[in-house]
Amino acid sequence: MPTRFALANAIRALSMDAVQKANSGHPGMPMGMADIAEVLWNDFLVHNPANPRWANRDRFVVSNGHGSMLLYSLLHLTGYPLPISELQNFRQMHSKTAGHPEYGITPGVETTTGPLGQGLANAVGMAIAEAVLASRFNQGGHKIVDHYTYAFVGDGCLMEGISHEACSLAGTLGLGKLVVLYDDNNISIDGEVGSWFRDDTPARFEAYGWQVVRNVDGHNPAEIKRALETARGQSEKPTLICCKTVIGFGSPNKQGKESCHGAPLGEAEIKLAREKLEWPHGPFEIPAEIASAWDARAKGAEREAAWQTAFKAYAAAYPQDAAEFERRMSGQLPADWQQTIETALAEAAKATAPVASRKASKLTLDAIAAKLPELFGGSADLSESNCTDFKGHVSVKPGKLAGNYLSYGVREFGMAAALNGMALHGGLIPFGGTFLVFSDYARNAIRMAALMKQRSIFVLTHDSIGLGEDGPTHQPVEHVASLRLIPNVQIWRPADQFETAVAWRSAIERSDGPTLLALSRQNLNPQARSPQQQADTARGGYVLLEPQTAAEAVIIATGSEVQLVMDAAKQLADKGRAVRVVSMPCAELFAKQDAAYRESVLPAALRRRLAVEAGVSASWRGLVGFEGDVLGVDSFGESAPASAVFKHFGFTVDQVVARVEALLAR
Amino acid sequence: MPTRFALANAIRALSMDAVQKANSGHPGMPMGMADIAEVLWNDFLVHNPANPRWANRDRFVVSNGHGSMLLYSLLHLTGYPLPISELQNFRQMHSKTAGHPEYGITPGVETTTGPLGQGLANAVGMAIAEAVLASRFNQGGHKIVDHYTYAFVGDGCLMEGISHEACSLAGTLGLGKLVVLYDDNNISIDGEVGSWFRDDTPARFEAYGWQVVRNVDGHNPAEIKRALETARGQSEKPTLICCKTVIGFGSPNKQGKESCHGAPLGEAEIKLAREKLEWPHGPFEIPAEIASAWDARAKGAEREAAWQTAFKAYAAAYPQDAAEFERRMSGQLPADWQQTIETALAEAAKATAPVASRKASKLTLDAIAAKLPELFGGSADLSESNCTDFKGHVSVKPGKLAGNYLSYGVREFGMAAALNGMALHGGLIPFGGTFLVFSDYARNAIRMAALMKQRSIFVLTHDSIGLGEDGPTHQPVEHVASLRLIPNVQIWRPADQFETAVAWRSAIERSDGPTLLALSRQNLNPQARSPQQQADTARGGYVLLEPQTAAEAVIIATGSEVQLVMDAAKQLADKGRAVRVVSMPCAELFAKQDAAYRESVLPAALRRRLAVEAGVSASWRGLVGFEGDVLGVDSFGESAPASAVFKHFGFTVDQVVARVEALLAR
Repeated sequence: MPTRFALANAIRALSMDAVQKANSGHPGMPMGMADIAEVLWNDFLVHNPANPRWANRDRFVVSNGHGSMLLYSLLHLTGYPLPISELQNFRQMHSKTAGHPEYGITPGVETTTGPLGQGLANAVGMAIAEAVLASRFNQGGHKIVDHYTYAFVGDGCLMEGISHEACSLAGTLGLGKLVVLYDDNNISIDGEVGSWFRDDTPARFEAYGWQVVRNVDGHNPAEIKRALETARGQSEKPTLICCKTVIGFGSPNKQGKESCHGAPLGEAEIKLAREKLEWPHGPFEIPAEIASAWDARAKGAEREAAWQTAFKAYAAAYPQDAAEFERRMSGQLPADWQQTIETALAEAAKATAPVASRKASKLTLDAIAAKLPELFGGSADLSESNCTDFKGHVSVKPGKLAGNYLSYGVREFGMAAALNGMALHGGLIPFGGTFLVFSDYARNAIRMAALMKQRSIFVLTHDSIGLGEDGPTHQPVEHVASLRLIPNVQIWRPADQFETAVAWRSAIERSDGPTLLALSRQNLNPQARSPQQQADTARGGYVLLEPQTAAEAVIIATGSEVQLVMDAAKQLADKGRAVRVVSMPCAELFAKQDAAYRESVLPAALRRRLAVEAGVSASWRGLVGFEGDVLGVDSFGESAPASAVFKHFGFTVDQVVARVEALLAR
Repeated sequence: MPTRFALANAIRALSMDAVQKANSGHPGMPMGMADIAEVLWNDFLVHNPANPRWANRDRFVVSNGHGSMLLYSLLHLTGYPLPISELQNFRQMHSKTAGHPEYGITPGVETTTGPLGQGLANAVGMAIAEAVLASRFNQGGHKIVDHYTYAFVGDGCLMEGISHEACSLAGTLGLGKLVVLYDDNNISIDGEVGSWFRDDTPARFEAYGWQVVRNVDGHNPAEIKRALETARGQSEKPTLICCKTVIGFGSPNKQGKESCHGAPLGEAEIKLAREKLEWPHGPFEIPAEIASAWDARAKGAEREAAWQTAFKAYAAAYPQDAAEFERRMSGQLPADWQQTIETALAEAAKATAPVASRKASKLTLDAIAAKLPELFGGSADLSESNCTDFKGHVSVKPGKLAGNYLSYGVREFGMAAALNGMALHGGLIPFGGTFLVFSDYARNAIRMAALMKQRSIFVLTHDSIGLGEDGPTHQPVEHVASLRLIPNVQIWRPADQFETAVAWRSAIERSDGPTLLALSRQNLNPQARSPQQQADTARGGYVLLEPQTAAEAVIIATGSEVQLVMDAAKQLADKGRAVRVVSMPCAELFAKQDAAYRESVLPAALRRRLAVEAGVSASWRGLVGFEGDVLGVDSFGESAPASAVFKHFGFTVDQVVARVEALLAR
């Protein structure tokens, strides 16, 4: 049997070799955390390399994602379908070994990491999902949901603000099955951290209510093992294990220095490291004895089989719950979902009273939540304002993890990344609310949801200048436009209750990316729609008003401006002008429709186009062209009642009429 | 002499009256923190209402900015030019009493707050500026820079991640003249905080190296005073004073509850509060005795006069330093600045070797920093990568605050908000670096710099897919486009060393907003320019290549794509096609040029336009129109060497040539 040191050196060797071959990457972290990873993976981690999607596997997150070669080494060594050729192809086009670990690319990668601190917050979300699902499904002595979430973090993760948000929340909720291993190597990119990072990190985490295991020698397997046992002995609190490590451990001239963090060691230094580590094998060579000691396939198969047996027993006792668990973990919607949402849409279509779209969102949630038990709502301390607190929600609280709603506190970024973690875990469809303007705080987590194709849903209320008195700090004039630019994001800005319900349907049914809802604070008038118009709403853009005679001009509007342009179009009709109105609640979705449909809505020949949206006009310049016009807001807003602010920026019927008339006069 | 309680009640009364009259706003915080504010402002705060710009005033920041009426009450009561009519006009169009405090609108407001946690980070930046300037200018027993920075924060600020970043940094640096008063009222918008926020906040701040004064009764002036004395008795550490308060103190039925946080109390409740507070005066009525006790004009004038006397003595001893201090605090550039920058530009224009624009940025900094002592650089732990570590920089470190460079640690948002605080303080021109993709983390602070019109400079390197192997998590494909959307932001994406130097000139000389530099990791070829082209570069967009005959088409490009399109244009010329090349390093600045200039660069009649930028194409659709084309990147990037990624996305000479030919064939 090889020594633990030799097993860890397999990670070190693969990591330094792959980085060297790629001539790019980060050997320091994998070499520094190899011993920790070896103990965790060989003695504790419950997983099955043959089935990376096994529902009850432990989740393992490398939050310091630049150490991707650590993870690729582990996946390769334990028997995931990641052959050595992929490690040799590290960081090359279309390899399964991207520069940073990417979910969906590499089997066994639980989340995409790299942007520091977010993996940790994803792990918190995964641990919340585990606890919530365990509370829901475990019963009668059966524990079908019962796994740990482990995360590796570095100094960078712990300096990032999101670590505060996520870990404060984890401590508050007492997530006892979350175990974080801190790579305390005293080095970040600018050098020794003492000049910019002097936190007493153990004391900080104790202040969050965590169990902290201090002063673990991260190169001593026995100490690491004891620490992990201590962590697992605690079920009321998350645990932070502080491991003192040497970055680049084994590189005689570079270990302990920044120089081994993010660049190849160089052939000469690698040769010296091989000698020091007593690793005589060639590049990418793993001796059979080592390979066999690492191979986790048999143990993994056994473990999953044991769980499958336990699950069968559970299914015998609770057949409905077992089926429900399988459905939810598979990501399938309930059998009666279509009926649920069609009913909600029909209700919304009948609405006659003005209602704010944030309230329309709550009405939709009220109609669907009871029939969609995987829906897991929440807000960053704005539940009532965001109208996320749907009827019948059950709040998750410290000591009471059963529920389908969470008050995340004032933690927008932490919430968003936790939503991603829940979505990745499976079994929940998470959504979270904040003011649209504070999507800025969460922006990179929204981006990560898009990159990972996760069904995270963001409820972003108080859109645009309609927010009113809170003023420019709170008026998101550029946010809808800027969120539209993130690839694979779909953002809806619905005009009324019906469009809001359609937006929710799209969000729930979308399985390849996040959906954002930009919702109004103020009331919006309901619009009448034919059945065809109702159906076309789901296409993201459609003709809401067609004039009696051939359209001379078209007004494109979204959200709160739709009612305004409808009034203007009617006034223009009274003046004998034939103006089409296009409502475009989701421009990204409209852009994806086939050319014939798009042409039917916005004919190429119809060049007199006015876009009206209370946001930066750049968003629409491409759609209106040189001959068109945009009524937008290209400066920061103003602090005043909403009606005064709209008027100030020219969002009046008169102004819209005048702009269209100017187009027609050209 | 009125009691302290009566003095504090003046704040409470004005706040509840103003919110009631506006029918909008937040009475809870001002009523809860009134006693704390009364003690701080009447017993400690050194300021002069007649001169809100006095260089050595104490800085006071309301980080929980929704409590704006507290600040407006204080400014009005102490004698700033903010008459009662302005308080009666709270939250109305063009009043000086916006919903949240806004810098530049209201005399005495030191920073715009509202987005939680950022005011606190601004305060950290102000305290850094004070310490840095004190180290530079105080000498021979003279202390011309010697003031405190006080910040009020609520639970929300302390839940936000940025509070971790800013306060960890403040503790590390030992900012002894930073005093933070925590409004520990146990309430946030979702209700009592115990279900989502259970930090041991005092222990957390001690872990950051702060002095913490615990358990202060925030309604007991004697306790508050003692706590502030303790804070001021400590010069090596920042101090957190934890004040237990009752939100909405004085409102018999709403105090201690969320209901008084963000809505008017209502006439009936205000009547009851008046009785409870023994405040028999009418709305907006301040009895003469109270007004006189609050009036700080005489004391303020005296204090500033004393400082002016001290400054005169300093000027007599150190005339050059005194002049330099005055120049720097006024925001004027050095007398020889034009010469300095012209020399740097001339050098850059002569460059013949390819150089990454991040390195070109360092070359520019190397050329100007010694002559621009107010330049204060730094990076969020990427100094070498960002090339922000200019020649001769002196690092600020714990215990050594003299310097002009700071390693901020991995704290992008905290850094950005601290830059804003430094810019607001005056005396420094701050810049900070990170990867462009992580501008996401700092985005709302960039927005705040734009809203406050501050000269904060952001050095954002590793732009676009040219980043290469680090992959899509690190490849900012949408960031330049999305930053362009923030009003009043100018973002440069320079094509070579000369354009980089011009960008820096613009950043330094711009006095009404932030500048962002999007810089390449990879080398860029230098372009040749006539003197006129050199001059026009400062206009943000200009003709870089004019064909021999009348242009049939135009290619617009930025940054790393300029060299590509120049090669393509030459190939097209060889094929007999006359193609103009426009380099547009700063599209916002180009858009501000007069119509004639814009027409000269992009004639309306020249409709065959191809924009080439390795980023989302939406940015350029408006400029190319229906008849034009964009070569962009409308998905996430790929992890591979830069050259492979560029090729993958079609950024090749052949592709550009083919696209232009397709335009010409239409």
